[in-house]
Amino acid sequence: MYWLKEQMGSVGITCEAVATGIQEMLNGESIDLPPVILAQLGASPNKKTLLVYGYVDVEPADKKDDWKTEPFKLAEKDGQLYGRGVADNKATVMLWISAIEMLQKHNIDIPLNIKFCFEGMAHCGSLGVEWVLRKRSELWLQDVDFVCITDGQWLGNRKPCLSYGARGVCQFRIEVTTEGRDLHSGVHGGAVYEPMADLCWILDHLTDVTGKITIPGIDKLISPPNEKEQELFESLDFDIEEYQKSIGASELTGTSKVQLLTRIWRCPSLSIHGMEGGHSDGSCKRVIPSKAFANLSVHIVPNMTPDRVNNLIVNYLNMFWPKRRSPNSIKIYPQHCVYPWITKYSLPHFEAANRAIRHVYGVDADFTRQSRPIPAALILQHLTGGSVIVMPLNSRDDAPEVVNEKLQLRTYINGIKTIIAYLFELTSV
Amino acid sequence: MYWLKEQMGSVGITCEAVATGIQEMLNGESIDLPPVILAQLGASPNKKTLLVYGYVDVEPADKKDDWKTEPFKLAEKDGQLYGRGVADNKATVMLWISAIEMLQKHNIDIPLNIKFCFEGMAHCGSLGVEWVLRKRSELWLQDVDFVCITDGQWLGNRKPCLSYGARGVCQFRIEVTTEGRDLHSGVHGGAVYEPMADLCWILDHLTDVTGKITIPGIDKLISPPNEKEQELFESLDFDIEEYQKSIGASELTGTSKVQLLTRIWRCPSLSIHGMEGGHSDGSCKRVIPSKAFANLSVHIVPNMTPDRVNNLIVNYLNMFWPKRRSPNSIKIYPQHCVYPWITKYSLPHFEAANRAIRHVYGVDADFTRQSRPIPAALILQHLTGGSVIVMPLNSRDDAPEVVNEKLQLRTYINGIKTIIAYLFELTSV
Repeated sequence: MYWLKEQMGSVGITCEAVATGIQEMLNGESIDLPPVILAQLGASPNKKTLLVYGYVDVEPADKKDDWKTEPFKLAEKDGQLYGRGVADNKATVMLWISAIEMLQKHNIDIPLNIKFCFEGMAHCGSLGVEWVLRKRSELWLQDVDFVCITDGQWLGNRKPCLSYGARGVCQFRIEVTTEGRDLHSGVHGGAVYEPMADLCWILDHLTDVTGKITIPGIDKLISPPNEKEQELFESLDFDIEEYQKSIGASELTGTSKVQLLTRIWRCPSLSIHGMEGGHSDGSCKRVIPSKAFANLSVHIVPNMTPDRVNNLIVNYLNMFWPKRRSPNSIKIYPQHCVYPWITKYSLPHFEAANRAIRHVYGVDADFTRQSRPIPAALILQHLTGGSVIVMPLNSRDDAPEVVNEKLQLRTYINGIKTIIAYLFELTSV
Repeated sequence: MYWLKEQMGSVGITCEAVATGIQEMLNGESIDLPPVILAQLGASPNKKTLLVYGYVDVEPADKKDDWKTEPFKLAEKDGQLYGRGVADNKATVMLWISAIEMLQKHNIDIPLNIKFCFEGMAHCGSLGVEWVLRKRSELWLQDVDFVCITDGQWLGNRKPCLSYGARGVCQFRIEVTTEGRDLHSGVHGGAVYEPMADLCWILDHLTDVTGKITIPGIDKLISPPNEKEQELFESLDFDIEEYQKSIGASELTGTSKVQLLTRIWRCPSLSIHGMEGGHSDGSCKRVIPSKAFANLSVHIVPNMTPDRVNNLIVNYLNMFWPKRRSPNSIKIYPQHCVYPWITKYSLPHFEAANRAIRHVYGVDADFTRQSRPIPAALILQHLTGGSVIVMPLNSRDDAPEVVNEKLQLRTYINGIKTIIAYLFELTSV
């Protein structure tokens, strides 16, 4: 986080790095969580106060995973910036610093008090952040009128978005174990009930081919379809073919715009990230692993809550497992969770942000949801009582993905303009 | 292999290390395969010739996989030897050297010419060994009367075994891929067809809960049950409860002795060793892998052949896959294969070996099959035209397993005695 403190210092913002606690690891060791950077620019009683939230932690990256450039070294080529974090979300944090630098350079008074909360655990459920902010909520957060989260992406490449919702997530680890040890598949194959096969069976009974969760009761947790929102979805600048092409999928689970957006914004989804046997290092080993694990995520939507989803899934597995008639044991470990978030896009805050966008892009913003979790949105909505907006500054072509993460240089420059316009538009709310 | 040459040299056996060729690796590199050690002790035209086959390659071992001792350092404790290879199969090779040393120490003439073939690729299908031996078959193997393979295990702890069969194996890698790249499960979960879920589905359609292969046509390849052999199985010294306890299983797929032995000796079995998503390193990554792999083995029995099994499985997957209605692609890569082996336990060679066992243990041997592949058995049966026997010298309590491999010191000493008795009994065949 030190580079961030330095960058902020260069535009005269003094930062405080607040410890967020320690985390016990699976291997028994404890590590310090990264601190939260809190900072303040201006404290005029005549100005409204905006809280800017961002994060600088990134997904892991390894050159050998088909990266064309060094993932942790910023590279520029043909008007594109490449590197881990350029789209998700380091560059977006830097945008705020660049915007303030620009105003200072032109001796323009910043029309709001701005508070900053930048963290480093967003990809792991913003662990510790809520704790820090909750302790500060009476003193530091009480005067916050607006919260702006510059995270997420536009739907396409033509129209910017303002987002009023985000899915949450419940992560799980499922484990199937024998009572015995790893066995040689040659010697014992055929005599024993194998955990890997059991695990495949149970995972195959959680979703259909399209990834729709088939666990009974899940559907009842989802808020019912809303006609007005469906009309909104229909009106959005979202090209399903362009989307399909951008991710390289040969087929999607929905064939219409509304159908697909409903799936990724208003429906839960279940993804299996990986499975491990006892020893899966790709060698000649022909073992029957005595333990088999799967890591999976369920992305959740209003009105699902992590508690309800965890209970439903744990109960379902415990009830369904005996149908397998395997002597092996199944265990499910709920892991980190994020609540889904939703607000109203008819609020004045959204109108002001839309005016800012119109200044820069000459078009109205689309009001959208985000399919991926933004843990800070709900936390900050609760703690400040202010109006939260998610203002994605990246277009669809900017790729906050697993490898070769990239951001268009044009996106960065328009992002600075949007932030400055937004600051001024907020003064009239 | 140098320690082995040294050990053999210490009892006056001159070794030849014959190169077996190079192997192209998945990453494009080529590596030299380990040489085959060929050696000869005695060439008297008045003596019969025995070919002894053994191997000194071992399964990988890592201290962190719950080994209580350093896996590559021999440790002795409470009458047990611990270390990778003590049961499978380094110690068994050393037994031959110890037996010869013993005869030399007592100035006893060795009653046979002995040829040795010790290799280092047995766990990977004895790659290159067949090629070397085939080149030598007219000169070096033509005078071989008997082949002895001291590999495998007894059924229990009370009665030694002589084995007349071994299962083969066909290994596979199954791959499900999208056309696109890895995707963030938050952003895209619900919109795309996920390879990991597809892979679980297909794997769940290959076996039933007991591991019985459900691919149509497999059963027809298996040689029909043989009443006389079933009676033999019934007579064997095999305690199903003791076996179950020794592997720590809470339940077995067969409840009677004959049922269970039939499953591990006369039936094919399918084991999934591991599955990988694009990136399964246990971090916070919430990726939808664009590729999902599984490594699996099918152990095969007479009259199955690798060709027939490979064809059957590849055709089945290609025919069955469209039922999934997933746009993702499936590929199956047959990998290394070993033929099953079978001979007649009524041959004089088996009678001689049985007499040797009676000398040492005071009981008759059980005639058994081995559930795991012994690639050299069929190769040497073909190339020498001699009579092949598999003479396991390890009891059930000696554990050629994945971790904490061990051998009883008593097993080692009785092994030396058995070999010496066997050499003398063979002179009367």
